[in-house]
Formats: sequence, structure tokens, C-alpha cells
Amino acid sequence: MADQYAQSSEDIRPTGIPAIPAIRWDEPPEGPVLVLLDQTRLPGEESELVCTDAQALVEAIRTLAVRGAPLLGIAAAYGVALAAARGFDVDEAADSLAGARPTAVNLAYGARRAQAAYRTAVVDGAGPERAAGAALEAARALHAEDARASAKMAAHGLALLEELLPGGGHRILTHCNTGALVSGGEGTAFAVALKSHRAGSLRRLWVDETRPLLQGARLTAYEAARNGMAYTLLTDNAAGSLFAAGEVDAVLIGADRIAADGSVANKVGSYPLAVLARYHHVPFIVVAPVTTVDLDTPDGASIEVEQRASHEVTEVTAPHVPVLGMEAGGGIPVAPLGTQAYNPAFDVTPPELVTAIVTEEGVLSPVTAEGVAGLCAESRGGRVPID
Amino acid sequence: MADQYAQSSEDIRPTGIPAIPAIRWDEPPEGPVLVLLDQTRLPGEESELVCTDAQALVEAIRTLAVRGAPLLGIAAAYGVALAAARGFDVDEAADSLAGARPTAVNLAYGARRAQAAYRTAVVDGAGPERAAGAALEAARALHAEDARASAKMAAHGLALLEELLPGGGHRILTHCNTGALVSGGEGTAFAVALKSHRAGSLRRLWVDETRPLLQGARLTAYEAARNGMAYTLLTDNAAGSLFAAGEVDAVLIGADRIAADGSVANKVGSYPLAVLARYHHVPFIVVAPVTTVDLDTPDGASIEVEQRASHEVTEVTAPHVPVLGMEAGGGIPVAPLGTQAYNPAFDVTPPELVTAIVTEEGVLSPVTAEGVAGLCAESRGGRVPID
Repeated sequence: MADQYAQSSEDIRPTGIPAIPAIRWDEPPEGPVLVLLDQTRLPGEESELVCTDAQALVEAIRTLAVRGAPLLGIAAAYGVALAAARGFDVDEAADSLAGARPTAVNLAYGARRAQAAYRTAVVDGAGPERAAGAALEAARALHAEDARASAKMAAHGLALLEELLPGGGHRILTHCNTGALVSGGEGTAFAVALKSHRAGSLRRLWVDETRPLLQGARLTAYEAARNGMAYTLLTDNAAGSLFAAGEVDAVLIGADRIAADGSVANKVGSYPLAVLARYHHVPFIVVAPVTTVDLDTPDGASIEVEQRASHEVTEVTAPHVPVLGMEAGGGIPVAPLGTQAYNPAFDVTPPELVTAIVTEEGVLSPVTAEGVAGLCAESRGGRVPID
Repeated sequence: MADQYAQSSEDIRPTGIPAIPAIRWDEPPEGPVLVLLDQTRLPGEESELVCTDAQALVEAIRTLAVRGAPLLGIAAAYGVALAAARGFDVDEAADSLAGARPTAVNLAYGARRAQAAYRTAVVDGAGPERAAGAALEAARALHAEDARASAKMAAHGLALLEELLPGGGHRILTHCNTGALVSGGEGTAFAVALKSHRAGSLRRLWVDETRPLLQGARLTAYEAARNGMAYTLLTDNAAGSLFAAGEVDAVLIGADRIAADGSVANKVGSYPLAVLARYHHVPFIVVAPVTTVDLDTPDGASIEVEQRASHEVTEVTAPHVPVLGMEAGGGIPVAPLGTQAYNPAFDVTPPELVTAIVTEEGVLSPVTAEGVAGLCAESRGGRVPID
């Protein structure tokens, strides 16, 4: 019923503007730099943001020019390597990067990992140059690990789709942004859809706009267009109509945290999709690396939900579109002044509504506490996929 | 869990700006006029739009300064009366008003009703002045009828809430805009919440922002604030979290059309709420006048869903806020250029998900084809409430 809304994104960028990777280490003659795709200017503009020191990277992290949990870890590691290569105080840079945003644990992980590599090299008698090289190697290793995990999740995810939906023609609904913009590779849920596209099996990617911050409209639509995928945008409201019309074969989402019982915290709006998927007998699939599992969080009720500011809902903000003379972050009020909003950043989907969790280690289905524990044990043991 | 997001809207308008009715017939010395609350400027500005002839009203209808099905019918009737009172061609005015917007059947109903009153008076030998008076009486009668229907729906709706949720403390979730801005009275679903508020029974009105056009954020929040109700705005996405937290006691929505089998077409996003309400065992209540029932539409599948333009989703538009120098309707792109959107204006909720339909004639529950037919028969026979 909605075929007239389908399109190939090849129509969108006929000029073939080259993609800019989300993050890149570069070595121009005047010294090493970290080059970011400035995500605040997407989708209107693809521009590079060049960081010559860790402080510039901290600023880029704070302004959301670079964002997304795995990518933030990679960026922080490169930031420490950059400080080392340019002869700045490495410990100071690591502290500064680790605390650039309060909730992103990956920042600290990436920063500390590169810092540890640097220190170890120094202890082992390396000079500043070789120690800086060790920090860079650590950053590159983290980057490569994340890319490999992405590729494995995509392979496991596509195999699962082929099992659940034999014959191809996948019509996949996704929420928020889970692609290359948040990853060292091609992402999590988006990477599965992309692999399906490359295999000729993706009939349609339905992209939830994802209010309030519109990561779907701004970023997932951008990634789908860049990859020539057949995609269609919708308000989060309209997903119900798609389910009712039988236009959704599977839901694929990422995860911010997975509790020990298999409860999944993800961008707000994921849980209503899980309920709709259950009501319509459509698979609801979570794609996330094993590091997303937090065994210290026993269940969904134990997950503290971050409540964000009202203005994200009561004002509309646009991506940085200089041609319109708008400042990024400047909002236009759409509700009466003084209106308060209930604005949880994410919601929690209980394990009984999750058909499967796809990780780099394999597929967990059904989702149970025992299965989650086994997944973590396998992962820590460095073993082969559990499925 | 969300009490910190609650508020009394008395905080919002401490200056006590007087309310402007959505529509008002006025008789200044220089001749009669129709005064509208300019809805394109809400919620930022409450300003009057004065129409001195039918053509100005047609323009106001086209630009959505006045909107909402019942209110459009009332406006069109007054517009015909205005043409008659000012000595313009009444038939021409009626034709122009009836066709001001293509999909609003109420426009034609209101215009033709006032036109018929005028013609009947002329046939009966009345001069232009008395015939114009007849047209005005017809408009006033329609206005009063709609106000009475509103009041009856509110009374029946509150009685139903008290039956389903004894003890008060109602936490009601609503979607889109169904109050005085679309009605000759206080509206449909909103009127029930307002009556609960006045009875001291409303603990919270949860207001879905209602993408893509944000009628909830812009208009329902405005009406809630004007009436001093405890309300909280949320993205449509966040409703699932509220249900999961047990923060919703009932869902109240309006209806655009009700099919003979009891299927309800309403603003997109209503159906997902119905599925969530069922999953969480929360009553899902539709409030609409009997005229909303269309016995010529046998079932939900027969309801043609209007698909609207992509730009409503791919661009964000703000209400007319002159201080920001934005033109109404001028959009800021939030998705890649060329992105197509699936943008149905409404969705269809099957009768089995509707707990009750509240009309001016009474409450229909359970919702069955026989019940709907009986409701219409009672209404046409002018009988007392069926419940």
C-alpha cells in the first residue's frame, strides 16, 4: 500500500558526493590530526572537523559533532594518542576526554586504554615517540575491534533474518541511529539492514524519525541515502499503521544497556515498537555488542532511566543549516511557555518481548537470564559463537 | 515516578491573559463581523482575526487560522450570514465557503444550512434584512447545538470515567487536539478531561505532542494551560514508558470517522495507543458526536486513509512566531534532500481495541456493529441516551 513512498536513495545524491568517515587519523606534514565528520551539520552538509589537540576533540564531543557510544570510545583513544604524538600531557588529556560527557562510559574506556598503552611503553623504556606510537596502536586496535564486531553482528543478524524470513524481500523497521556514525565499523542494527541490502534482500528500510532529537530523520536517513538503500521516513506515530497494513517483516534496533535478565534499554520509542511487534506477530530483534550487557544490572526495573530537559520537546531545533541563519541548539517554541515535558531518553523492553539479541558472538534466542549469562561467559572466554 | 514533571498551568500564565473564543459574531457600529482566534499564531500569541466578508473567512480557513471539523461548519454558517448581512451574494459566498478546503464536509454542511435558512426566508417573503437574520439564526443554532453536544459528551464521558476509575485521581492520556479550538463548545475528548478537572478528579492530563503537525504541543497544551489543568507534554514515543510505569489510567481520543462496525479513524498515532492500552489493560475511550458515524463505511478496511505530503515530516515547521522572523509554513529540512516520507493523516483502530465510544446520546460499550446501528437509530429518532 505504500509503494509510492518507496525510493532508491540513488535519486537523492546523483552527484556522488564522497562519504566522509565518522573518524579518521591523518598525518599531514604539519603533524598528526584527528578528522571527524561534523555530525551537527548532517544531513544538510558533510563537512570535516579537524582536531589538532585533545582539547579540540573534547569540544567536538561536547557539541555532539562526534557522538554514539562506541565511536566516542574510539575518539577518546585517538585523542590520547594525539596528545602523545604532539607532546602534550597525556594524563591530562586522558582525564579531560574521559570526562567530556558525564554518561558516556565508553569515553573513559577508550581514553584509559590508550593511556595505559602509553604508560606501559614508557615503563618499558620507550621514548616519547615510541610511547605515542603505542597509544596510537591501542586506538587503532579499538577501532578495528569495533569494526570487526560490527561485521560479525551484521553476519549473524542477516543469517537470523534469512532464517526467520526466508526468500528475502525484507521490510525492516528501525529506530534511532545505529550505523557507521556511531561505530568504528558499520554499526549494529543498521549494519544488519545494510548487509541485507548488499545481499539484495532488503525491500525497504522504514526509518522512524525518532523524536525528540530526530536521529532517524537526520542520521539514519542520511546513512541509508549514502548507501543507496530503499528507505522511507515516517513519524514514530505512523509505525502502527505500517504494522496494521502488514508492511513490517521485522524490527531491528540497537541497545544502550542490556540487563542480566535480558531487559533492553534503548532509545525512547523502542518499547512501543516491541508491543506493536508482539501484537502483530513480527520479530523484534536487538543488535548490540556483548559489552552492552551489564551483569551488575539484574533486571529492567533496576535500569535508571535518564530524564532529559523539557526544551527538547517544547522547542524544535534544527540541524545546523547555515543557509537559514539558524544557530545549532537555538530552539523555536512549539508549546506554551512554561510547559513541562516528560522526556525520558530511553525506555526498557522486557525480555519476553524480544525475539532475539544479536551480538558479535552469535544470536541469543529466546532471551533468558541463563542465555545472557552464557553469552557473557562465552565472550570472556574468547570462545566461538554460541549459535 | 514522573511527579517532578507535573505542573499546574497556573504557573504558566500568571498574568491572566483573557481567553479569546475560537469564533465570535460581533456587531460593531460599522457593521457585523466574524472574529476568530488566529490559530496559526498559537501558542505564542493569542490574537484576533476580524473577517468583514466571506472572502476573508475563506482565506482564514485556507491558512488554518480557523480549523477543526465542527468549528469549520459553524464558521461557514456564520460566513454565509455575514455575506447576507452585508448585502453580498449569499449563494456565491456559500459556494466559496463550502469549497474552501476539499476534505472538510462540515464546511458544506454549515454553509448550506445557513444558505437554506436565508432562501426559505426569502421565499416566505422576507426582505434582505430579515432573511439575513434567518441565516444568522441558523448559524447560531448550529453553534449552540455543537456546544450542547459537547456538554453532553463531557457529562457522559465523566460518568464513564467515574464508573471505570472510581475514586478520581484520573491520569488521562490524550492525542491531537479535541477541545474548544475545534468546537462550538468545549470539544470532545478534551471536554471530558476538562469536566474531570472541574470536578477535582483530574490528577494529570498527559498530552501527546502529535507529530507531524504538533497539534498536541501547540493547541492541547495551550487549552490545558488556559484552563489551569495539571498537564504534561510528551513525545508520542514516550507514551509507552508511561504505560509501562502504570502512569496512565485511561486514554481519551476523538474521532474523524467511525465505520458501521465501530472501527475508529482518528489522527495517526491513535492506533498504537490502542495497542499499548490493550497490552496494559487500560481503557481506550473514543469521544465523538453521533454525526461522526458513517454508516456508508462498513468497516475499517473501507476507510480511505489520506496520505499527506512528505515535507510535513522531512521539514520542521514552527507556529507563526513573528519574533523569530519565520514565515508560517516555511520549513527547515531535517532529513536528506529528496527523502520521501510515509505520512498517513490518520489510522484506524478496530472496534475490539475500543473500550467505549462516548457520544452526546450516551456511551456505547462494548463497541459492536449492532450497537453502532442502534446509536444512529436512537439519534435520528431524537430519543434519550442509550446508556
